[in-house]
Amino acid sequence: MQVIKTISEARKIRQQLSGSVGFVPTMGFLHQGHLILVRRAKEENSTAVVSIFVNPTQFGRGEDFRQYPRDLDRDLEMLEGVKTDIVFVPSEEEMYPSANGFNSWVDVEGVTEQLEGASRPGHFRGVATVCAKLFNIVQPTRAYFGEKDAQQVVVITRMVADLNMNLEIVVVPTVRESDGLAMSSRNTYLSPRERKAAPVLFQALSLAGELWRGGERDAAKIRRKMTALIQKEPLARIDYISITAPDTLEELRKIDRPALVSLAVKIGTTRLIDNITLK
Amino acid sequence: MQVIKTISEARKIRQQLSGSVGFVPTMGFLHQGHLILVRRAKEENSTAVVSIFVNPTQFGRGEDFRQYPRDLDRDLEMLEGVKTDIVFVPSEEEMYPSANGFNSWVDVEGVTEQLEGASRPGHFRGVATVCAKLFNIVQPTRAYFGEKDAQQVVVITRMVADLNMNLEIVVVPTVRESDGLAMSSRNTYLSPRERKAAPVLFQALSLAGELWRGGERDAAKIRRKMTALIQKEPLARIDYISITAPDTLEELRKIDRPALVSLAVKIGTTRLIDNITLK
Repeated sequence: MQVIKTISEARKIRQQLSGSVGFVPTMGFLHQGHLILVRRAKEENSTAVVSIFVNPTQFGRGEDFRQYPRDLDRDLEMLEGVKTDIVFVPSEEEMYPSANGFNSWVDVEGVTEQLEGASRPGHFRGVATVCAKLFNIVQPTRAYFGEKDAQQVVVITRMVADLNMNLEIVVVPTVRESDGLAMSSRNTYLSPRERKAAPVLFQALSLAGELWRGGERDAAKIRRKMTALIQKEPLARIDYISITAPDTLEELRKIDRPALVSLAVKIGTTRLIDNITLK
Repeated sequence: MQVIKTISEARKIRQQLSGSVGFVPTMGFLHQGHLILVRRAKEENSTAVVSIFVNPTQFGRGEDFRQYPRDLDRDLEMLEGVKTDIVFVPSEEEMYPSANGFNSWVDVEGVTEQLEGASRPGHFRGVATVCAKLFNIVQPTRAYFGEKDAQQVVVITRMVADLNMNLEIVVVPTVRESDGLAMSSRNTYLSPRERKAAPVLFQALSLAGELWRGGERDAAKIRRKMTALIQKEPLARIDYISITAPDTLEELRKIDRPALVSLAVKIGTTRLIDNITLK
């Protein structure tokens, strides 16, 4: 496994690669969800590249950029374990050189103003921009993203199509703990009591699935029942519960086509997100 | 010379190319200035690719998108004459498919709000975005731009650096008619009387050069004398005259370093731009 830190090194190595390249961009502090992305990248391509970069531009003021968990040694060990070929670990200075300033952004409109975008202004500008940068550096054949960040998948898919980026986006199902909690690096913030409360997100999503399979098509009714379920958990505070078209992220009143049910809930001070698709 | 119309065809052909690719993005209605770019691209690379696409997203409301001159047959003949290898001529539908909508934009801040950006809001968003798209399709080793569009060069150079696009931007000096008028597809709009008036832009720039070589370092004084010269021409109406740092486009009061002198002047209803660098 090669660990590289500079863009120029990455370019040099990329040039020498033949065959397809599968790429998994991450912010590190890896969990099983990431490793499954890497395994897919490895299976489907000649070379698997993982990046670890906690991207400052996707965090808003007052968000957890400084506290975001980091453990590079552990990450590298885990990546070695799944036979990653190349790990790209750029510094902040390498990605956003302070001498030059940084002025260029990728803005994806229409699918970034709602849901996470509404709660986290500027978040998707940072996400789209850093992904554009990483794609230009790594030049992957395929890039792998987890379904847990559903809106991120929509934004990146849109960007790749609109800007004719020459790669395929592969979306991989969410990996869950045995009690249903979606794996996330931020789960590490949870106290033991909060950790016990956290599966309420998936319980609410599962309820939505049951109601829908039972024939319920009224989005407001489903949201109300999800809200009631979550409100029974004293540590939980709902940020949003949303039922949208999966590609445009437009809210649905009547679920007369496939639908993305997504939610953000604060458990104590930790904000968690999760989603399922009804289809 | 291969003429291709679709992105999928372009990708297929690009994959088969070995060696370096020199790329000249144009809006067609070619003149000597373009051909010199293509000659450079051809000299310095294994393959020379030219695109012809009148990009709607870089024209504002009320600008000349519909009237912009087009003559594909003549363009192709001229490109054949300079031994262009590949011409990419996508339709508007190919570049901005109406079925999907188009939502992703490259915004370059800090160098797009002034000069052309102030007179033409949204212009550089369109320019940066279409260049990003074309770069992703053509995947050039080098892309060639004329110095006449000085701010465009600054914006694209900035975008390529910030987003780590894997290509080199080559800037080629402005080509002028014998009376100094910078070549431009828009010169075709000029009536014979206006055509006679149009060299006033270069005369004003030359005056700035003389004053500077004579030791004048006060930007306001130079601008005043340029203004006076242009105002003697009854068909001319100044949009802006600017003296800035060439990379940041910040206005200079005192010319104590290299400086970009640029101006936009309407000759009748035709808006022309030109510039020189003092160094």
